[in-house]
Amino acid sequence: MPAEPAPAARPVAAARRRRLRADRARQLADLLRHQILAGGFPGGVLPLEDVIAADYRASRNTVRQALDLLRGEQLVDRQPGVGTVVVCEKYPHGLDRLQGLAETLHEHGRVTNEVRTVGPVGAPGPVAHRLGLPEHADVLCIERLRRLNGLPLSLDLSYLPMDVGGELLGCDLENTDVFRLLEQLTGGPLGHAEITLEAVNADAHSAAVLQAPRGAAVLMLERLTRLPDGRPVDLEFIRFRGDRITMSGVLRRSL
Amino acid sequence: MPAEPAPAARPVAAARRRRLRADRARQLADLLRHQILAGGFPGGVLPLEDVIAADYRASRNTVRQALDLLRGEQLVDRQPGVGTVVVCEKYPHGLDRLQGLAETLHEHGRVTNEVRTVGPVGAPGPVAHRLGLPEHADVLCIERLRRLNGLPLSLDLSYLPMDVGGELLGCDLENTDVFRLLEQLTGGPLGHAEITLEAVNADAHSAAVLQAPRGAAVLMLERLTRLPDGRPVDLEFIRFRGDRITMSGVLRRSL
Repeated sequence: MPAEPAPAARPVAAARRRRLRADRARQLADLLRHQILAGGFPGGVLPLEDVIAADYRASRNTVRQALDLLRGEQLVDRQPGVGTVVVCEKYPHGLDRLQGLAETLHEHGRVTNEVRTVGPVGAPGPVAHRLGLPEHADVLCIERLRRLNGLPLSLDLSYLPMDVGGELLGCDLENTDVFRLLEQLTGGPLGHAEITLEAVNADAHSAAVLQAPRGAAVLMLERLTRLPDGRPVDLEFIRFRGDRITMSGVLRRSL
Repeated sequence: MPAEPAPAARPVAAARRRRLRADRARQLADLLRHQILAGGFPGGVLPLEDVIAADYRASRNTVRQALDLLRGEQLVDRQPGVGTVVVCEKYPHGLDRLQGLAETLHEHGRVTNEVRTVGPVGAPGPVAHRLGLPEHADVLCIERLRRLNGLPLSLDLSYLPMDVGGELLGCDLENTDVFRLLEQLTGGPLGHAEITLEAVNADAHSAAVLQAPRGAAVLMLERLTRLPDGRPVDLEFIRFRGDRITMSGVLRRSL
């Protein structure tokens, strides 16, 4: 005898329940993620599932699903005999003022730079344009893989006008932010920068350089830095590993 | 006869050439991406490959590889008889002041909100804590899928204290930013917000809601908004589709 078809309402109601469960798990994962990144779990160990369930007013099933999501993001892992532990190292990059990487992360360790490319290149048209240079002028191109305490954090590509950039060729690019070097060379503070942030999936090559999985979410920062007189001196394309960097700042309603 | 083994230097040199080619393609893709997002290609059509090669001082092979990367990001597509065309719609979200979505995108079209959840819930411990409420106080929970001109842009989850949030229950949440409603209710401008931005890969459920591929890069914004007197009134977790939103602002070196 063929099975009786389920009434139409049944699968709809089941789908709705599944959706609600998935919503709740995601919402709980958001809260736990914040606590993890804020260092809110002492010793980096999450409470037991039923304690989380009580604290966050969620069912055990929702807690399990939320922890699965965070494991998928490689923020936590389950360790036998210990429980769910925080395994990520996510560092806060300031978003309130213009800062170099070593500067903004100085409390978190030592930034070192592997210089992959450094030297003059003929500026592609749009680079010359954005740096306010004549077409086909030479610019200094620097590509660095930047590490914090040895862990790959970002891949930075910079273009600088040769009159400023040329001076960088003899400098210690392995251990010093370009911003700091520029300020030493120009004898004063930088001015401001126009920035654009995006989330992109890493292409195969960037992922390999950053030692991240292919397709990993990358925080992409484009930054055009200017001297106090407005002259552009540094055009950068920076790929931060999404699992290692957050950007934090304060926005005001009135300017 | 077995083939003679290649000298050790040969594969190393070949690997180095591949790496350099891949570097150059990525560097060119970064420049083209900027031009695409800045609307720098009239009519949304990219120049022919050999024109790009000349403009950007690159080889035809590098141009082809760079266009492949941009196709992989779904920024461009190849159309027979037309060439390479821009297919993305990426919108700039301001990062200089605290703004709602409809407000920041008002030049780009109409924002509508599908309210997926709205109602009071017992505040999970950390939500109560961040909103400065007693433990287990009720909060208003709102989840909205936000669209620009019908296209899914972000999934926003908000928690608000009931004394403020309760008033929102009768408001037009489908067509109005919560910020605007809050200012109408409190009779004055909001104060400031602490924000954190991250790039994450979308989990299966968020991806489905946002109609994005599973694992798509998502720009995740956490925002705690306060009244001018410092009282927190709106804790949000927002997932922006990485392929549809950029965040732009200006950073100054001196505060």
